[in-house]
Amino acid sequence: MDSNTIRILGLDPGLRRTGWGVIDVTGSRLAFVACGTILPPEDAPMGQRLAALHRELAAVLAHFTPQEAAVEETFVNMNPSSTLKLGQARGVVMLAPAQMGLSVAEYAPLLVKKSVVGAGRAEKAQVRMMISILLPKATPQTEDAADALAVAVTHAHHRGAAARAHAAL
Amino acid sequence: MDSNTIRILGLDPGLRRTGWGVIDVTGSRLAFVACGTILPPEDAPMGQRLAALHRELAAVLAHFTPQEAAVEETFVNMNPSSTLKLGQARGVVMLAPAQMGLSVAEYAPLLVKKSVVGAGRAEKAQVRMMISILLPKATPQTEDAADALAVAVTHAHHRGAAARAHAAL
Repeated sequence: MDSNTIRILGLDPGLRRTGWGVIDVTGSRLAFVACGTILPPEDAPMGQRLAALHRELAAVLAHFTPQEAAVEETFVNMNPSSTLKLGQARGVVMLAPAQMGLSVAEYAPLLVKKSVVGAGRAEKAQVRMMISILLPKATPQTEDAADALAVAVTHAHHRGAAARAHAAL
Repeated sequence: MDSNTIRILGLDPGLRRTGWGVIDVTGSRLAFVACGTILPPEDAPMGQRLAALHRELAAVLAHFTPQEAAVEETFVNMNPSSTLKLGQARGVVMLAPAQMGLSVAEYAPLLVKKSVVGAGRAEKAQVRMMISILLPKATPQTEDAADALAVAVTHAHHRGAAARAHAAL
């Protein structure tokens, strides 16, 4: 891996399905590395579901050794009980990279869509199509994995803009 | 510790303050062991706050080696953003004991108040007073630690009831 390359892990957390996607960023060039979906056992007690989620995500982190992580923020149109459960999964998903010393950026869904498609009101199919153009080697099997790659792409754009602004000072 | 004694960890999760309380249960006898409050750094990024919460709770678990854990369920009267944040802390708080192989029971606030005070509509001051009667050696410094002890007491009552029902079969 080029020493100017940054490896980013994008995450789309959920208790039933957590999507993850790894990309390499070299300047403005993006390269797909891997993506997948973690499916904790649905019928186990909550603690065990969260432990399975943490264990599988820790394995992804150990295998691909990303340097930065980013996560999507979603809780709209949910009842409090669903929001609490999403939060529980999200807490564990943000914990795993933080425990390995990675920064974990957070992005609102509108910003993710705008970064990938160019419009905040984009539909899921448009996000998926743009991912296939931006990362031609990516073959996400689930919407969650595609969304995770979209979050990684969003972070690639926004961390770059921040770095350029910093360099221009 | 008596071999018939079960050590229970009660937890009242929160991102700014997580209360914990450890009690020993021998038959119907309750004994206070320890309690405290975890205060993750408020100004750190979310991932680091969650990592601090996990680290400190893991230290409590390693030190007191409880056999069972119980957590309070609270999300009423909150906006979605606050509920999501509470969920994140709660996910990490449930993860830590589950990673050590402990079962993590969940109790609704009404049940906790009813178990400790005898009425679901009890006020916080009543819960605290009953804790000082049930566990005279307990000196919780915060409401969160008192609530965590109340959750532990609730679990002591309900796990006992379940065990007796089982033995009567």
